[in-house]
Amino acid sequence: MQSVGPVKIIGPEVNDEVMVPLATYEQPLWPSTHRGARVTAVSGGIHGVVIDDRMTRSVLLEASDASEALRLVSELKRKKDEMENVVGRHSRFTHLLDFHAQFVGNLLYLRFEFKTGDAAGHNMVTAAADQLITWIQQAYPEVKYISISGNYCTDKKASAVNGILGRGKNVIAEVTIPQKWVARYLKSTPERIVELHIKKNLIGTMLAGGIRTANAHFANVLLAFYVATGQDGANIVEGSQGFVHAEIRDVDLYFSVTIPNIIVGTVGNGKEIPFVQDNLKTLGCFEKREPGQNARRLAVIAAASVLCGELSLLAAQTHQGELMAAHVKMERS
Amino acid sequence: MQSVGPVKIIGPEVNDEVMVPLATYEQPLWPSTHRGARVTAVSGGIHGVVIDDRMTRSVLLEASDASEALRLVSELKRKKDEMENVVGRHSRFTHLLDFHAQFVGNLLYLRFEFKTGDAAGHNMVTAAADQLITWIQQAYPEVKYISISGNYCTDKKASAVNGILGRGKNVIAEVTIPQKWVARYLKSTPERIVELHIKKNLIGTMLAGGIRTANAHFANVLLAFYVATGQDGANIVEGSQGFVHAEIRDVDLYFSVTIPNIIVGTVGNGKEIPFVQDNLKTLGCFEKREPGQNARRLAVIAAASVLCGELSLLAAQTHQGELMAAHVKMERS
Amino acid sequence: MQSVGPVKIIGPEVNDEVMVPLATYEQPLWPSTHRGARVTAVSGGIHGVVIDDRMTRSVLLEASDASEALRLVSELKRKKDEMENVVGRHSRFTHLLDFHAQFVGNLLYLRFEFKTGDAAGHNMVTAAADQLITWIQQAYPEVKYISISGNYCTDKKASAVNGILGRGKNVIAEVTIPQKWVARYLKSTPERIVELHIKKNLIGTMLAGGIRTANAHFANVLLAFYVATGQDGANIVEGSQGFVHAEIRDVDLYFSVTIPNIIVGTVGNGKEIPFVQDNLKTLGCFEKREPGQNARRLAVIAAASVLCGELSLLAAQTHQGELMAAHVKMERS
Amino acid sequence: MQSVGPVKIIGPEVNDEVMVPLATYEQPLWPSTHRGARVTAVSGGIHGVVIDDRMTRSVLLEASDASEALRLVSELKRKKDEMENVVGRHSRFTHLLDFHAQFVGNLLYLRFEFKTGDAAGHNMVTAAADQLITWIQQAYPEVKYISISGNYCTDKKASAVNGILGRGKNVIAEVTIPQKWVARYLKSTPERIVELHIKKNLIGTMLAGGIRTANAHFANVLLAFYVATGQDGANIVEGSQGFVHAEIRDVDLYFSVTIPNIIVGTVGNGKEIPFVQDNLKTLGCFEKREPGQNARRLAVIAAASVLCGELSLLAAQTHQGELMAAHVKMERS
Repeated sequence: MQSVGPVKIIGPEVNDEVMVPLATYEQPLWPSTHRGARVTAVSGGIHGVVIDDRMTRSVLLEASDASEALRLVSELKRKKDEMENVVGRHSRFTHLLDFHAQFVGNLLYLRFEFKTGDAAGHNMVTAAADQLITWIQQAYPEVKYISISGNYCTDKKASAVNGILGRGKNVIAEVTIPQKWVARYLKSTPERIVELHIKKNLIGTMLAGGIRTANAHFANVLLAFYVATGQDGANIVEGSQGFVHAEIRDVDLYFSVTIPNIIVGTVGNGKEIPFVQDNLKTLGCFEKREPGQNARRLAVIAAASVLCGELSLLAAQTHQGELMAAHVKMERS
Repeated sequence: MQSVGPVKIIGPEVNDEVMVPLATYEQPLWPSTHRGARVTAVSGGIHGVVIDDRMTRSVLLEASDASEALRLVSELKRKKDEMENVVGRHSRFTHLLDFHAQFVGNLLYLRFEFKTGDAAGHNMVTAAADQLITWIQQAYPEVKYISISGNYCTDKKASAVNGILGRGKNVIAEVTIPQKWVARYLKSTPERIVELHIKKNLIGTMLAGGIRTANAHFANVLLAFYVATGQDGANIVEGSQGFVHAEIRDVDLYFSVTIPNIIVGTVGNGKEIPFVQDNLKTLGCFEKREPGQNARRLAVIAAASVLCGELSLLAAQTHQGELMAAHVKMERS
Repeated sequence: MQSVGPVKIIGPEVNDEVMVPLATYEQPLWPSTHRGARVTAVSGGIHGVVIDDRMTRSVLLEASDASEALRLVSELKRKKDEMENVVGRHSRFTHLLDFHAQFVGNLLYLRFEFKTGDAAGHNMVTAAADQLITWIQQAYPEVKYISISGNYCTDKKASAVNGILGRGKNVIAEVTIPQKWVARYLKSTPERIVELHIKKNLIGTMLAGGIRTANAHFANVLLAFYVATGQDGANIVEGSQGFVHAEIRDVDLYFSVTIPNIIVGTVGNGKEIPFVQDNLKTLGCFEKREPGQNARRLAVIAAASVLCGELSLLAAQTHQGELMAAHVKMERS
Repeated sequence: MQSVGPVKIIGPEVNDEVMVPLATYEQPLWPSTHRGARVTAVSGGIHGVVIDDRMTRSVLLEASDASEALRLVSELKRKKDEMENVVGRHSRFTHLLDFHAQFVGNLLYLRFEFKTGDAAGHNMVTAAADQLITWIQQAYPEVKYISISGNYCTDKKASAVNGILGRGKNVIAEVTIPQKWVARYLKSTPERIVELHIKKNLIGTMLAGGIRTANAHFANVLLAFYVATGQDGANIVEGSQGFVHAEIRDVDLYFSVTIPNIIVGTVGNGKEIPFVQDNLKTLGCFEKREPGQNARRLAVIAAASVLCGELSLLAAQTHQGELMAAHVKMERS
């Protein structure tokens, strides 16, 4: 593990310079992300904003036919308060926000959305969904349990639903980098970076049959960050489905990453490990704050770090041979 | 990290019982995967077979128009031998197998496929692609370099191309479990497991807008296995896109996992770390074998481990409340 | 054009036997769909239910940064009543139901959802979205217009959003067919039809990189129905993204189609053509009813017709050689 | 039906000005596509090139386990000549080009690729696949027939496989339009059209969970063209999955459409209808040519027409209010 930065971040959740810990076997990730941190810091820092925050679990039930499933959903919509109480009775930190239904014949997929405070919330939403199923089955014994998770949640799968309906923290990080700093630090031009992003991240990913994703390597930085901060690393599957958006502004480079499904927490599994605790403290995510604020701060730092790594790699790929040279240099040292 | 098993595996690459190391913050993964190991072992073991093995890199070039791009591809098809030589001159272990082209207007995405021996091969294919671009540009100076990677490779993205054209090791692991062992070890029935798989993994994932994937949690086991064996863990993004296929055979349960994109190596980045070396040795993947055989053995073990974890979780989800109870029990102990 | 049936339908929107007009160059579609009509009628008829009904248009706006976009959306959520009035002032039949926002960097995609009465509503939602943009720009001049349609609507594209958030009529049609009628009319068994559906529609489509779709040929029947009833046929692109769900019930066959995006109307473009008017009249969709009821009736008939065609083709494919023989026979006659 | 144009096309398959027949209920399509025809003609015409041409059918077989399926595929690869003969014995016009295999557990999906001359080839490939299954089952009686079509073909489904492996004619049409003609005919600028394409077609479609598609309304023009020329219109489902690629060249607009799956023929179902024959004759697709040349000519004309319609609509959407105004004007006249 190595820390890179400082990454300078501006916004309601983070207004700070932070050293970002990245745990990875792929060592070129460190200097590359560090370069991104430097160029964004001299450019005034990365603006980070949390668009949304919720955690989900979809249960799978079966009615005798579609009409019965539809009736059930209509009733549940009227009983949302009661459902909130069912959840609240069992957990102080889990709050039912809303639910969404999908029907396939007589099958019913109910996707519950919760607030889970500073926890990533996998287990909290499973427990809450469990309570909701028990309550539904008492009130509607004709409905059959099929699964506590119907894969419409969806956890750790490449899909479209999480981006559209939300799961985890939806974070946008953005920066405008003066042309001269693109030249000096990134050895490139705003035009070449924008062009590469369009032809590689947008068109290339589309060609590959990519789903709701347009980036070069969000997954790399995200996994290194997740491992270093005690997160469930397998959530990079959906976490890495995100968008770069880059444009020329005047002659400068506007560069942003939108990561709709960052699933992180500052409490829960993995957070009790000493080096994880150290990292979370260093990142300022162990402070006394409103429930959820530490986790959102962590998510913004994750997104800013991803931005640094993405920008640096794209800049490198605008030159033939540079990517390979960087790897060779790193591995020989 | 903890080892689970032994996992009993049968087939050309592995004919052995192996203890499988899993590094994860999610501790319930260990007993769950272990349960899968036990029930498959008493059922005679898991059959594993490697369907395909190749590593890819797609470069992105630009012609003046589509006709010029088409002419270039026609010429390259005739010069495949020469291209093989270009690759062979720079690396003893990298062999060009084939290439595939995609056209978008005047843009040309060339997806090169290589053998990379026992390495996962990320850097080897980048180096080889670099050589090929240099050679192409000397022969066809009218063609413009855009990127060493056009995201049609595709590395660590949720897409369809890797499953269709192949990237990494395509492995199938399968087992038939007698009804009585399903009852005794998994506390379920073949019928309920098959039903759950269809309604959750197939229909549920489809509903979620999933792309080429039908499983409950391949990502969890795969990441734990990758971290324990020094792999580039971010490759679980495409690695976890795989298929369960389950059926009733007579009264017993046929259960299989098909994982088309396992990207693992026994040499390269991360493999020099002592605990990784220990794990690879224990798994029997540090033997003197034909190049590629150790890596393929590792891939089969990965797939068999994923099968164990998947089977166990699905069985648990056939009962209301069991998943949550297992988590609670684990976390209290 | 030829009419097939009668198709017997049961439910709140249709409780009737209807002759279904299908306009197609693919003549085997007629006897095939007719066979499905016969077997479902003797089995007691097809149950049809409308799960949802709305039409959408997504506008594309640009803020200076993500925070500004987020602020705008927060304000719009508070001003929903005012937005409803903006829409209501310009059209008696268009009602704003809700809206959904997606953010990419500083880009903002607002997906408005409307009721459009008996019209499919393409133009009504465009007009309403136009009014809403004008109103937004007056109130928030800092926001820049990019497009009246940001492809997040989404109209006539293969995607996931319409199925998840809804566009058009979401209809489920279902039937239970006694084993003996499956044998007599379809020359097959419930088991073989269910098996084929799983291996072809679910697994095969997943393998193909299919997105939110699991059927054999919804597109064929839907297009023929759309052309015969004056619909915008290009809407089969998303309309054909739907799900078969089939199971054994006792020894009989439960067979259903779920079609979330049927976009049809009984007024508007194409409906003034005499043969279209005749067809809509025959289908009972020109009656005096509450706004929207005629269109929903039409959607249920569409779904029931798709069920007939799907069931018949699947049954045919359970036998080697039958599909080809049917084509040969038809084309020689 | 109305004809628009003339559309001026340059290239090996078409070197001509053609009036393009479009059959649609959506009348604004005519003047809009006509505008595209005019501006491309004054700009020197549209260059059209066929990248690939093949038709496919995927059969679905079942082995006892994955190893047996793998052995079968290895044998088939060695017996390709024999398989070509099996196909050739039954049809003069169907030629087996290649095949591709996918494995899921013990399931085997074989996707056969054929040349089918001037026919779209749906029935020809079904007949050929039928013969191949019969031949396989005689040689390998242990293999079980599941379906003549395993949905991996894939016919009329929104997926990724057809674009990646090819199905139908892969056609690129491109044009460079001087800035002044963009201003005069399209009332827009190259910059605004490129910007709109990126933000709407690329980013917007990605957001929607779109799969391998980036365009505004390929489906509209394609369906109108298919109906007017006697094609199987339901093939617009995959046919409309295509890419716009647009860039500024100097100050002018480079604009292209890449449509990888145009499935059209000049013989077969629907082509015997008098008005279809007239249309095909007018388009010059009833000439004495090498088998396949008439169909490829038709495909290039289809792509050029799609380009005209796409360019015109995008230009219209660069102005707020213009799209709606055009519809209103058209519908009042």
